[in-house]
Amino acid sequence: MGRSEERAVRAAVAGASGYAGGEILRLLMGHPEVEIGALTGNAHAGERLGALQPQLVPLADRTLEPTSAETLAGHDVVFLALPHGQSAAVAEQLGDGVLVVDCGADFRLADPADWERYYGGPHAGTWPYGLPELPGARDALRGARRVAVPGCYPTAVSLALFPAYAAGLVEPEAVVVAASGTSGAGRSPKPHLLGSEVMGAMSPYGVGGVHRHTPEMAQNLSAVAGERVTVSFTPTLAPMPRGILATCSAKAKPSVTAAALREAYAKATAGEPFLRLLPEGQWPTTGAVLGSNAVLLQVALDETAGRVIAISAIDNLTKGTAGGAVQSMNIARGLPEELGLPTTGVAP
Amino acid sequence: MGRSEERAVRAAVAGASGYAGGEILRLLMGHPEVEIGALTGNAHAGERLGALQPQLVPLADRTLEPTSAETLAGHDVVFLALPHGQSAAVAEQLGDGVLVVDCGADFRLADPADWERYYGGPHAGTWPYGLPELPGARDALRGARRVAVPGCYPTAVSLALFPAYAAGLVEPEAVVVAASGTSGAGRSPKPHLLGSEVMGAMSPYGVGGVHRHTPEMAQNLSAVAGERVTVSFTPTLAPMPRGILATCSAKAKPSVTAAALREAYAKATAGEPFLRLLPEGQWPTTGAVLGSNAVLLQVALDETAGRVIAISAIDNLTKGTAGGAVQSMNIARGLPEELGLPTTGVAP
Amino acid sequence: MGRSEERAVRAAVAGASGYAGGEILRLLMGHPEVEIGALTGNAHAGERLGALQPQLVPLADRTLEPTSAETLAGHDVVFLALPHGQSAAVAEQLGDGVLVVDCGADFRLADPADWERYYGGPHAGTWPYGLPELPGARDALRGARRVAVPGCYPTAVSLALFPAYAAGLVEPEAVVVAASGTSGAGRSPKPHLLGSEVMGAMSPYGVGGVHRHTPEMAQNLSAVAGERVTVSFTPTLAPMPRGILATCSAKAKPSVTAAALREAYAKATAGEPFLRLLPEGQWPTTGAVLGSNAVLLQVALDETAGRVIAISAIDNLTKGTAGGAVQSMNIARGLPEELGLPTTGVAP
Amino acid sequence: MGRSEERAVRAAVAGASGYAGGEILRLLMGHPEVEIGALTGNAHAGERLGALQPQLVPLADRTLEPTSAETLAGHDVVFLALPHGQSAAVAEQLGDGVLVVDCGADFRLADPADWERYYGGPHAGTWPYGLPELPGARDALRGARRVAVPGCYPTAVSLALFPAYAAGLVEPEAVVVAASGTSGAGRSPKPHLLGSEVMGAMSPYGVGGVHRHTPEMAQNLSAVAGERVTVSFTPTLAPMPRGILATCSAKAKPSVTAAALREAYAKATAGEPFLRLLPEGQWPTTGAVLGSNAVLLQVALDETAGRVIAISAIDNLTKGTAGGAVQSMNIARGLPEELGLPTTGVAP
Repeated sequence: MGRSEERAVRAAVAGASGYAGGEILRLLMGHPEVEIGALTGNAHAGERLGALQPQLVPLADRTLEPTSAETLAGHDVVFLALPHGQSAAVAEQLGDGVLVVDCGADFRLADPADWERYYGGPHAGTWPYGLPELPGARDALRGARRVAVPGCYPTAVSLALFPAYAAGLVEPEAVVVAASGTSGAGRSPKPHLLGSEVMGAMSPYGVGGVHRHTPEMAQNLSAVAGERVTVSFTPTLAPMPRGILATCSAKAKPSVTAAALREAYAKATAGEPFLRLLPEGQWPTTGAVLGSNAVLLQVALDETAGRVIAISAIDNLTKGTAGGAVQSMNIARGLPEELGLPTTGVAP
Repeated sequence: MGRSEERAVRAAVAGASGYAGGEILRLLMGHPEVEIGALTGNAHAGERLGALQPQLVPLADRTLEPTSAETLAGHDVVFLALPHGQSAAVAEQLGDGVLVVDCGADFRLADPADWERYYGGPHAGTWPYGLPELPGARDALRGARRVAVPGCYPTAVSLALFPAYAAGLVEPEAVVVAASGTSGAGRSPKPHLLGSEVMGAMSPYGVGGVHRHTPEMAQNLSAVAGERVTVSFTPTLAPMPRGILATCSAKAKPSVTAAALREAYAKATAGEPFLRLLPEGQWPTTGAVLGSNAVLLQVALDETAGRVIAISAIDNLTKGTAGGAVQSMNIARGLPEELGLPTTGVAP
Repeated sequence: MGRSEERAVRAAVAGASGYAGGEILRLLMGHPEVEIGALTGNAHAGERLGALQPQLVPLADRTLEPTSAETLAGHDVVFLALPHGQSAAVAEQLGDGVLVVDCGADFRLADPADWERYYGGPHAGTWPYGLPELPGARDALRGARRVAVPGCYPTAVSLALFPAYAAGLVEPEAVVVAASGTSGAGRSPKPHLLGSEVMGAMSPYGVGGVHRHTPEMAQNLSAVAGERVTVSFTPTLAPMPRGILATCSAKAKPSVTAAALREAYAKATAGEPFLRLLPEGQWPTTGAVLGSNAVLLQVALDETAGRVIAISAIDNLTKGTAGGAVQSMNIARGLPEELGLPTTGVAP
Repeated sequence: MGRSEERAVRAAVAGASGYAGGEILRLLMGHPEVEIGALTGNAHAGERLGALQPQLVPLADRTLEPTSAETLAGHDVVFLALPHGQSAAVAEQLGDGVLVVDCGADFRLADPADWERYYGGPHAGTWPYGLPELPGARDALRGARRVAVPGCYPTAVSLALFPAYAAGLVEPEAVVVAASGTSGAGRSPKPHLLGSEVMGAMSPYGVGGVHRHTPEMAQNLSAVAGERVTVSFTPTLAPMPRGILATCSAKAKPSVTAAALREAYAKATAGEPFLRLLPEGQWPTTGAVLGSNAVLLQVALDETAGRVIAISAIDNLTKGTAGGAVQSMNIARGLPEELGLPTTGVAP
């Protein structure tokens, strides 16, 4: 696990005390070409990492530094796992020579109106989008100095539906219900995220089109479809720490067959190192992708209801955040895309 | 809790070793007008109930008898919690004088073609349907001698959507994704139901319109809508023992407003003892209905996507099975509908 | 459930926004002789109960009042579910005519040195101790105006071990490891109580004799044994919302037999409405007592190791807090001890 | 992860359909010196691995072969993840040239009387014991052709207590209560292992000294202590898929101090690549070792009760089974001991 003396990439992680930051570090520790540099965090600066991320045993005695231009200087890559709105300022200080991989939302949305409605404040523009499996995305990432890592839900939903839209098989009105593990809600203690509240309970939130990831999904699918796609998105909180199961559907266009559908998915996923279209009859489960960067996919045609059902399972912290970030880094830096990214889940 | 010497109703439970049977008994033990008679079960006949249902402490020393006309004779009510296909024969032997409340599927579907496609074998017809909240259903239950208790998913989905269809606010194509606790899959040990497999995992099953509860939902909603409603239904298994969260949506008819929608739900739920339309902004959670017969409801209009989103939370074993059975018994026998049915959940 | 117009007892709950307060209300709503009066809470005064305790559906539209002598006046019983140190002042204001049932620790410990070491601050003395199953405790509760409800762990541990100590079968050095559901840690949001942290994890805390419940267990067992009993107590947090499984052991005195041990437990639990010594070979599980006031018990003699192992399972919020409180109220007020207290668990 | 063309070790896994076999494969896929050869399983021979172990995405299209001398021939290492009693016959057929790493119990116990009492049938003898951290064990593993991997509980318990026994700080009567995730009970579907039963519940089993891992713990600790150590062991099933938290204690010898205790643990764990004595005040949690081969340790002296409390957290499938097996293989084959073994957990 990375014992070479000379590694190609020296990486810093800003926001190392949170769940996304911890997962980035877990992956980087298994990455043969990365040397871990500065670890920063504002609220927890000065604390031992072992007290904050006890699972990162080999880094336990590292201390968090404050997030600043000084502490982040001198790295080849800086991962930002910061609250929304802080990335632009940090990136500006780092200069163009460094690769900045932003796990926040700041540079994901192209339409200022979407930004205004869902996040508010000034629109920062877009960076190359870190979902290489989408048409054209991989090319845009090669050699990039800035990457906007997608949201966890948009990752799961876009990957489930893009083959159907790319092949023109479904109507531009998608309906998505996704279940997420609680780590997606972050590490700030809030009453509704207490274990006592979430264990044994399924709870919806952000219902009615108001969740911030909605326009990002619509943007991705519209680009693939070549027409405006709307997404009716309902997220739910599931009693598990990790994982997203996205159940996505859209009306099938007339005369679409199950065979044509399957062929479209086979074609869209062929050669993709992290996408796995399951054999017919087997359905994705989040349990199989725990800690893994793999995306399990399956699709079916409901002829009675006239709808295509596409389902994906990902680990929200791995492929949905940190794995997508490392995958994008690999591409941007010209490393093999799969380097350091497990495709085996920790199951059962 | 209910020690009166003269109780109005003597009840037997056939299938007392399963999850549905155990929940019926839990509720009957708190019912002031029910005296518990025979407990039967074929595979476990002769065993102590305490070894099978350790939670039913006061009944621990009761012994299961075989399910037969003899053991079930002499009761006012017989609850059937049997595998599909066994209810007709048992009911026939019991005669018309006894109220038979069937938790199986045998007498739910009116259309023989639906029965043939989803269950197979001879179609048995229908009995009065034990979902009193649906238009007309309560009247049909009064004085009934036979009751078909709805499936757990159809209970959650029909109650979430009937107000919208009754008011003519949505198109006849519903899309439903529901998450269920594992007790809905019963007590037979199967590899995919092991704790090691289900904890930490969300898993879909019966995708593409093939789940047996699909035609039952469509039947209920079509009756309310006065036109044929299709339902695209995707069930998922959630890492919790109990509960169903049903996320249901349908395209809004032109010019439907959020106010009209809310008014329709307020009207449809008014006076219903077990339906609770939550205040605006509060969403149902299955955690709040654990062990309770209450149904939590909320509805929203997504104007961007043009869809109505209606969500319900129930306990699949209580309102979704055993509570629905007891509620129907109360109505059929002329008892107060709420008798013995808790509306407080065991939370957190 | 309980709609009679004239009920014997009018009860207020101070601290109705927390887990203990919510559980007291759940039980009181099923109690045929209690009318629910004022609900108070300081931080949440003015809020709807439905937003705080969504499971208490029939009380959803009640509003919390501030905790004060005025709001708590005019009741027969006042349940205090307050942070430690506040009960004495509130009780004083209420006067001697009202029954005050305190779920806090203030009046549990007899030894000022214990109080000083484990809680600090002035020692308030003791009130009749609300664990009626202990020798002599029931008598002290009859007619009492003040009750100190035991801690949840001391309830589970004292009930598991008192029969062995009462019969003089074990040495005065007990070793206890108990697993508790997270609701025992209360509702204040703290990082280590987040669902993401607790699901999938067992974690010890308060190790090495420093948990505040330790001297309370020792006090109870010493009283039963007639000599000073020490308790080595290790609590652990388990990934479940409710329940305590207490695994307790002590060295067997010479020549103790399994038969003598079982006889001692049979004798100590005989006639106790909430204690259930399971048949040989069946072991307690917390799943079977969810929401129930029952205590499941089992005992074994390990002849190789020379130790008696006694295990109890309770619901920490029911028998461990709110159920113990209501049971004590019943005794103090001369009502049947079991009134309003379920002995069936919500399982699976 | 492991793309080198020439790898040092070709490994087969017998019993690849179970939880232990799956975890061995997960680790081997990340091992840079291992090439995965035959995968065998009797009941599932002929099935795709992807249907049985969906988490092992890169191996999904491999097919299980029957377990036989033929299918297992031609490998450098054969991992046996078979039911007890089958290892001797398989090993005999493989010849002395191959390294056989047995995850079963057959070759763990030295005392035929222990074997007879806890397992029954003929005693097979012992193989070098795969717990390198115990005094002398590492040497015995170097160059070994046969390895008996320890049981999961003995791994956790022996590592928690051996420093105290090695330093002569505690009396030879240990008391252990351990909580295990459900994967420790294997993959055969049994009613009490259903998700519906285990979620939300803590349950003891094998109480009173009858669990099969008891003599193995006693054997290990006795060897370290140089005198016969008895272990009172109570295992409990916790609502989580993986992890063991072992709470171990023993009476402190007179005049033992907290400092001496800590020093003994620091000394015994120094230089051990997988043992981590946490800083004072931080306690092990199973969540931090999910999927990791690390062992988190902490120790305390309870001066009131006069006992030493030592707690360990491991992943029962990783360090407790498959990780221990791979670690032993590394040593036996002369590879770096840590190769392919993660020490970062998948948390949260």
